[in-house]
Parts: sequence; structure tokens; C-alpha cells
Amino acid sequence: MLKIKDLGEKDLLRWLEDFCQPGSLGDDAALVSLPAGQDLVITTDMLVDKVHFSQQTTSPFDVGFRSAAANLSDLAAMGASPLGLTVGLSLPPELPLAWLEKLYQGINALNTPIIGGDLTRSSVITICITAIGQVSPSRVIKRSNAKAGDLIVSTGWHGLSRAGLELLLNPVLTEPLDLLTLELLIAAHQRPCPRLDVVNVLWSIPQLDRVAGMDSSDGLANAIVQICKSSKVGATIDSLSLAPSLQNWLTQEQAMDWTLYGGEDFELILTMAPSFAKELVFQLGPPAVIIGQITQELEIYLAGTSSSFDLSKGFQHF
Amino acid sequence: MLKIKDLGEKDLLRWLEDFCQPGSLGDDAALVSLPAGQDLVITTDMLVDKVHFSQQTTSPFDVGFRSAAANLSDLAAMGASPLGLTVGLSLPPELPLAWLEKLYQGINALNTPIIGGDLTRSSVITICITAIGQVSPSRVIKRSNAKAGDLIVSTGWHGLSRAGLELLLNPVLTEPLDLLTLELLIAAHQRPCPRLDVVNVLWSIPQLDRVAGMDSSDGLANAIVQICKSSKVGATIDSLSLAPSLQNWLTQEQAMDWTLYGGEDFELILTMAPSFAKELVFQLGPPAVIIGQITQELEIYLAGTSSSFDLSKGFQHF
Repeated sequence: MLKIKDLGEKDLLRWLEDFCQPGSLGDDAALVSLPAGQDLVITTDMLVDKVHFSQQTTSPFDVGFRSAAANLSDLAAMGASPLGLTVGLSLPPELPLAWLEKLYQGINALNTPIIGGDLTRSSVITICITAIGQVSPSRVIKRSNAKAGDLIVSTGWHGLSRAGLELLLNPVLTEPLDLLTLELLIAAHQRPCPRLDVVNVLWSIPQLDRVAGMDSSDGLANAIVQICKSSKVGATIDSLSLAPSLQNWLTQEQAMDWTLYGGEDFELILTMAPSFAKELVFQLGPPAVIIGQITQELEIYLAGTSSSFDLSKGFQHF
Repeated sequence: MLKIKDLGEKDLLRWLEDFCQPGSLGDDAALVSLPAGQDLVITTDMLVDKVHFSQQTTSPFDVGFRSAAANLSDLAAMGASPLGLTVGLSLPPELPLAWLEKLYQGINALNTPIIGGDLTRSSVITICITAIGQVSPSRVIKRSNAKAGDLIVSTGWHGLSRAGLELLLNPVLTEPLDLLTLELLIAAHQRPCPRLDVVNVLWSIPQLDRVAGMDSSDGLANAIVQICKSSKVGATIDSLSLAPSLQNWLTQEQAMDWTLYGGEDFELILTMAPSFAKELVFQLGPPAVIIGQITQELEIYLAGTSSSFDLSKGFQHF
């Protein structure tokens, strides 16, 4: 099997061209034209083998897909449209070239051109993707934009990615599940879709002038807490429902835990004035839903429970 | 001694704020305004412990400095001015916090704001910096811009960084050297300065309309070869001189070898019409110098030698 080190640097770069925007590898840096009046949005994510993914649960295609998806989700969370990605890779020279090919195919599956990057050797597979996007300054989504009286929109189900991961790690859990549910949950973990579509729908709503929000990559509860902290407001979450695919095979408590703290669902949590929130949910259709409202009072209430969020349950980077 | 893992993620992020552009850490991505009519330039470099640097020859401050310098040199090579950096870091949790602090101080020493990034754990120190800059589309420096008749400008000495590295690795080599030379060569390796100053001088030259070039981070010979290949031209290098700091203690052959293939000097190799090249060298002053000219004939001649460049001597990423 052909390994990365067998190719040599020049041939490797030539081979790479197939996965990159034509002409993007010829100079020291990439050039991008931005339409007048657009601001630039930039975000970086780093993924490390055995920390953020494992060969056991994630194919190279999915490692690429998820890496790009995480960055594109950050762009969507800012209300931006993607312009391009730079891909920094550190890889063991013994890695099969086929592995690298699948990785790039996974990145390319998200339809955002690779415009630059770096490729070097390391003992640990490390992927650093930087995504750039554009946004009209008046349409930036910020965590600090929420106001009391806003409704809170969740663009989709939560907890599915975490459920998919658990099913991959503990195959015995799959027993009570029908094939369709199993497939859905595993896909939610392996191929989470950044909600760039929501950005387009959002700004087609007439007179919409202010949106707060972020993505739920670190969990639904975390997103609500961060928005409230940044905006110096509170929230009441009174319409949170559990995904049908989590019900029946999980206890209510377990399902709620993964819904709140599971993470990696890459949905958007957005707040805006009630009429706009209702219009957005109508246009997106289910499972987009209003889950609560923003309050002046600084506390965050979760209806039906006496406890508040326990953010120690999220993924800890250190 | 306080370690990274002792701080916890939240405190670590708060601690990080001191090194970043104010307000840049609050959202999912960073926002940058680009003046109308400017194109965006973006470049990514990845550095891995024991591949690109070693604790033996490089302090954490210098690891940061060199990482940022490499990216800024790529911007300079495109004729761009820097707007900001994103810094992706993967680090062992046992690393002292003081190490991280020095790293960020080294990055900040180059006066380009950190506007985003990611910080995660790994067994191998890995640094992925993406630099963004702006350039007027008519002032982009491209490798493919060279034309027969152009003169070739080198903005400074070559081989000094490589000499500094060898002196650090083999202290016995330092014996014949005076302190000033030693300091100069080691600084050339540890704190190479990206030539962003050249970009400003360049475009102050009246009527200058076309510049080809790249930086010499992979060696002077490599830069000349890449420019000639991209532009489908050749070159005659007839005025290459060796840095005074390489003379006397090295054989002529060794000094020439490091000058051509040493790499990491982060100078610019530029080609343009003769009158502009002379004006640029005059304005920059020594050690900027015209080293040869671009020819129609596709060969590259190095005066005084019968051999052509041997690019297998450069740094191999794999």
C-alpha cells in the first residue's frame, strides 16, 4: 500500500492539487477577493487523533468531514457564508496515501474550496482547519445581541451526535434499535451538517434587524449559557423536547442529559424578537423549534426541573 | 510550577485574552473589516516539536516568534500587509504555563494581533498559525510575474539562519568566532525578521507596475528555481556574494552551500525591470543587492560554477 512518505514532497504537492482550488498552491499565500461592504469572518479548529476522534469510530472521510463541518458551523454561527478553507496537517509519514485521500474527500464533501494549507510530518495526526467567510456587517450574529423578550430558536434536535458516538463505542446498546434509527444516530455523529442553510433563510425574513446566537457544538446548555452571559440576560427554557430517536431505548434522564450536554450537533441556537423567531421556525420547518425565551432576570430556568445547567458535563479541552 | 492543566479551560481562556486582540475571543469566529478594493491574502504554517524546532536550540519565545515570522514572511512575499493571526495550539497538559506565556509573547513581538485560534491537548507540541493580510490587487507579488530582462534583487544575506542553527547544535564550531558575529548568526536563526518593510518601500517607487518574487524560507536557490519555473524563464546569477559573517571560519564551499540551500532566512527574492530593481536596492541599502538577471533561456546559470542548483539539499517535509 502506498504511503505518504513514498510519494516525496513534490509529487505529494502535485497530488494535492486535485483537492484544492485550481491555482491556489502556486504562491506563498492564497488570494481571495471580498465583495465591497462585506466583512471577513475567520475561525480556526484543531483536531488531534485520540483526543477529538478515534480510528475506531471515525473513518478518514469522516475525520475530514467533521473537521470542515466544525469550522463551517462557526461561520454559520456568525451569520457568514464560506469563502474557503486552509488545511494544516501533521501526519505520520507511514500513513497510507489512501487515508489522506479519504480525508481530503471528506473535507471537499462540504463544498467549500481548499485555498491553502500546510502538510508536515508528526507522530500524531493533527488537523488544523481555518475557515474564512463573508458577512454583511449589519447581519452579524453575535452572542451578545440577545435582549429580554426574545424567543430562543433551536434549529434542530440535540443529543443525536452523542448517542451515535455511544452506539459506536458500545455496540451492545444498538440491540433495541431499528436500523433506520441506528443509521440516523450514527450519521448524526459521523456527518454533522453545519447549518449554513439557516443563514440564508434568516436574512430572507423581511425587517429582521438583530439576531443573537451561536452554534451548539459544545452542547445546547453551553450555548444558552454563553449567549446569556455575553448578553447579560437570563432565559427560561420551557419547550425543550427530546428527539424521537432518543426515546424508548434511553431513560428520560439519560436522553435529557445527552440533549443538554452531548455536544457536536452543530445546530444553531438563535434569539430574536418573537415575530421573527416564529417566522424562522415556520420557514425552517420541524425539527426547528422555539425552546424558550430570554428574560431580564439573570437566572436560567429549565422548566420541569429544579436544577440549573451543569456545564462540567461538557467536553473539556484540558 | 503552574501547568496548563492546573488552570482549567475557563481560566485558561481568560488568561489568553491578554495576548489577543480585545474582544476577539467572545464569539464563534473573528470579524475583520477589509478596506474597499483590497484583496485578502491568507497563509497557513504548521510547526511540530522535534520536526521544525527543538527545545535545545529554540526557547518558547523564539518558537512563537519564528512561527509568526514564517507566516508574515509569506504575506510579505505576496506584497501584503498583515491584518491578524489565528493561532491553533496542541499542547501536552503538563507543559508549564510559563512556557505558553513565552510562546504568546514571542508571537506578539511581531506586532500583528492574534484574532482567533484554538487550544487543545496533544502529546506533541504543534503550532498552526494562519495569517491574513490585505493587498491591492494591482500590487500582488507573484512567482509567475518574472520576465526576461528583469534584474533579481535579494533583500539581504543568506545562510545566516542555517549557520546560527549549526552553531547552536555544535558549540565547538563557535571557537573561531568573535562574540558579535556569534550573536548575529544565532539571532538570524532564532529571530528571523519577515521583510514587511520591503513591501512599503517597493510601492513607494513611482511607476512600478510589476514585481515577481517569493520569500527565501526554503532557501535562496529554491526561490530562484520556483520563480523561474512559475514564470517559464531562466536566470543568470552572477553577483552573488557571501555574507561577511560566514567568511573566514567556513570553507568557501560550505559558505556557498548554506547561502544557496540553508533556508529560513525569510528574505525576499524579487524580480522587476532594471530601473526599478536599482531604485529598490538603493532605497533598501546594503545588504540588499542585485544578484543576477532573468533570461529567456530556461536554464539557471550560477557564475563561477559549472554545476546547477541541487534542490535535494533543502528541508524535506516528508
